[in-house]
Amino acid sequence: MTDSLRTQRTEVHRLPARGVYDRETIHAILDEGMICHIGFVFEGSPFVIPTGYGRAGEQLLIHGSSASRMLRALSAGAAACITVTLIDGLVLARSAFHHSMNYRSVVVLAKGVPIGEHEAKMEALRVVTEHLAPGRWDGVRRPTPQEMKATSVISFPIAEASAKVRVGPPKDDAEDYALPIWAGVLPMSLTTAAPIADDKNLPGVDLPDYLRRDYPGK
Amino acid sequence: MTDSLRTQRTEVHRLPARGVYDRETIHAILDEGMICHIGFVFEGSPFVIPTGYGRAGEQLLIHGSSASRMLRALSAGAAACITVTLIDGLVLARSAFHHSMNYRSVVVLAKGVPIGEHEAKMEALRVVTEHLAPGRWDGVRRPTPQEMKATSVISFPIAEASAKVRVGPPKDDAEDYALPIWAGVLPMSLTTAAPIADDKNLPGVDLPDYLRRDYPGK
Repeated sequence: MTDSLRTQRTEVHRLPARGVYDRETIHAILDEGMICHIGFVFEGSPFVIPTGYGRAGEQLLIHGSSASRMLRALSAGAAACITVTLIDGLVLARSAFHHSMNYRSVVVLAKGVPIGEHEAKMEALRVVTEHLAPGRWDGVRRPTPQEMKATSVISFPIAEASAKVRVGPPKDDAEDYALPIWAGVLPMSLTTAAPIADDKNLPGVDLPDYLRRDYPGK
Repeated sequence: MTDSLRTQRTEVHRLPARGVYDRETIHAILDEGMICHIGFVFEGSPFVIPTGYGRAGEQLLIHGSSASRMLRALSAGAAACITVTLIDGLVLARSAFHHSMNYRSVVVLAKGVPIGEHEAKMEALRVVTEHLAPGRWDGVRRPTPQEMKATSVISFPIAEASAKVRVGPPKDDAEDYALPIWAGVLPMSLTTAAPIADDKNLPGVDLPDYLRRDYPGK
């Protein structure tokens, strides 16, 4: 198994210096993202739908209602493009032209395979739940057979993929560095605030340990 | 002009109560987002690429290198699906099945029209720059004719669109409210931190007023 997930279709053509194909970088971006955007073709038109996901080794897992148009199309083997994007900041250059963003994104091209077998499907649901909220699965009420039936789970091989990464300060044209214009980076990140307990929680049910930490702005 | 951007193709089928079609909600979500994910079909395969954008009235504007595969395909009139997603929080229910996210997303289906005329193109670049960093355009070095030539700008009508919105606490099955499981929402948002000045800024060039504010964690 090669350690590059580069193919002709996933090669980064624009600004190829930003292209990354190693498995480790790609997995790290996938593990940090909260949602992916899945592209597929339905009746000739492209659609892009945001959804949660999880990663188990070399497989990207999504789940959803068995009745959904997207899940049905993807279960039937429609080609998908799954993109995960992390925004790290705005890059404010001296010229309008060199304005940019710092970001890390991954594009996975794949056809999915539905997971039907009970144990494997339950494990996939565990992975997707734990991806969003690590530590959560062990404390919640597990899916019933009826809920399992209402849920489709699809596995996509992470075999044909690329990442694009931009980091660091603005890169201006040489002569523009003489301009008295403030340049720099405005850092951005998806931030979590203090948990809001449901009004209907039973008395004495405390915030679980895995959700306790220092939240900014708390 | 109707105030609904609903069509058969943009109708929300899954959980239709979350579907929103009014212009005002759709515009507000587009105005808050930093990036969109554009889906298009290239040589038979779907691709989903993250990029910046701006909105001018009923038009969604994107720009990029004239040499890029995506910009060339979209300039030639390829059908696009442009999706903007704002993550507002994790919804932690008592059952694994009812875990969800609070989010606001917009899907716009459109074919783009390239903007070639100089004034209109410059105005579109202003809109895209101001979308990312309001106040920035007036203080930076404007695009040269050569840079304008290297940049494609495409305008998409916001005419066929839908939003999906989930807000509020978890919704569990009635019997699950008796379970001693902590449920609630973990709020999330894309947060900006204090600006990082470029090492190569000229002495005496201060942070512009439009970037001054209280940044969390400063």
